Amino acid sequence: MRNIKLTLMYDGTFYHGWQRQKNVVTVQQKVEEGLGTIFNENRVIVHGCSRTDAGVHAREYVCSFNTEAKIPAEKIPFALNTCLPSDIRAYKAEDVPEDFHAQYRAKSKIYSYTVLNAPHGDAFLRNRVWHYPRKIDMEKVRYAAAFLEGKHDFRTFMALDASQTIFEKTMYSLSAEKDGDIITFKLHADGYLYNMVRIICGTLVFMGSGVLNHLDMPQVLASLDRRRAGITAPPQGLVLEKVFY
Amino acid sequence: MRNIKLTLMYDGTFYHGWQRQKNVVTVQQKVEEGLGTIFNENRVIVHGCSRTDAGVHAREYVCSFNTEAKIPAEKIPFALNTCLPSDIRAYKAEDVPEDFHAQYRAKSKIYSYTVLNAPHGDAFLRNRVWHYPRKIDMEKVRYAAAFLEGKHDFRTFMALDASQTIFEKTMYSLSAEKDGDIITFKLHADGYLYNMVRIICGTLVFMGSGVLNHLDMPQVLASLDRRRAGITAPPQGLVLEKVFY
Repeated sequence: MRNIKLTLMYDGTFYHGWQRQKNVVTVQQKVEEGLGTIFNENRVIVHGCSRTDAGVHAREYVCSFNTEAKIPAEKIPFALNTCLPSDIRAYKAEDVPEDFHAQYRAKSKIYSYTVLNAPHGDAFLRNRVWHYPRKIDMEKVRYAAAFLEGKHDFRTFMALDASQTIFEKTMYSLSAEKDGDIITFKLHADGYLYNMVRIICGTLVFMGSGVLNHLDMPQVLASLDRRRAGITAPPQGLVLEKVFY
Repeated sequence: MRNIKLTLMYDGTFYHGWQRQKNVVTVQQKVEEGLGTIFNENRVIVHGCSRTDAGVHAREYVCSFNTEAKIPAEKIPFALNTCLPSDIRAYKAEDVPEDFHAQYRAKSKIYSYTVLNAPHGDAFLRNRVWHYPRKIDMEKVRYAAAFLEGKHDFRTFMALDASQTIFEKTMYSLSAEKDGDIITFKLHADGYLYNMVRIICGTLVFMGSGVLNHLDMPQVLASLDRRRAGITAPPQGLVLEKVFY
């Protein structure tokens, strides 16, 4: 049995996230159906590197599946793309050892989150950014962000309905850059709690715009209290950029 | 009666172009309906700077309309955006003399056309580029493009069903740049024949990839024969970038 590592990109706008669910369309379902078609198999099971939420995007999403098919790995993206909707694209496939698992073997992940800080929305970026018109002070954002780098209990930034039980994660880096009206956050951590990136970015935007006090970040982080953080930033600004193994 | 110049951007993916038509949704219709709502008028008539085709985009689309409303011009985009779908955004409005007309007063326009020259499509750019996987030689593209600058009869590059009767246009500049897998054409002319940008870009891509001979461009241009040109490049790569008055 071969084990194939497959790299995808997808625009999550029209999907209820990665994971298969009843009665809604998901990316996993589309990929499994596409692989089923090209391999002429009833059900191919694909293991993804993470569950992304509805509306969240991925530029480099890694998943894996088993097959007995003899097709050379590098041909799989070409075949699969003929069976996928155009907002999901496969662009790399390779044979990997059978103990490779896209989720459990992941060492760290990079996410980006994009904010449009301008009076009016953008017709082209509407599904890719959080449009936040109020002025954001990047000095305040960076001051607060610096406290989140390193190893911390990140429970403050976890959705209340999450089921995770290990709260300590290491944030290798958290940067915030502004280019014109576009603010891009880039986070690199060894793992993430549920909704952690979106709650961190919601908090940093609130601190940058004075809704919350940026000087309070150390206390907010130490409180382990979700109510001290800002809102969960909307999903469309979030992109899973890269997974390291 | 005030005459208002309004600047919009729109993602044309889900519209049958700018101009109002029966039984299909167009950008003009949405803008006129939105203005009708904010001014509480039955029908506001908007004059656009050009008819864009279905699927074509605009980053700076200029239109104008008359109104008796007393709202300050700079407030109009904020009010209008609450009544427009998110893929159409108004971002500038100003009072102009009554003889201003968005189409007849336009001195020149800049269009861009974008090609994704890569083996696989791009999930994010699917509605914004022509995905053309065959290798494109930029030297050949630029060699051929240079012959199109200046004043010419551009009939070779006009759709056969066009109704225009003045074929001479001045192409101030036509550039082709490659950045990674993305090729961007930028055209600046005092006017355009129907489908001219798309046919020029289809021809240049064909010449760059060897489907047509790039050395033939002078003869193709001089032939005034649509059959000598390449295909009409698909609409989604085209963006009206700027209109000069």
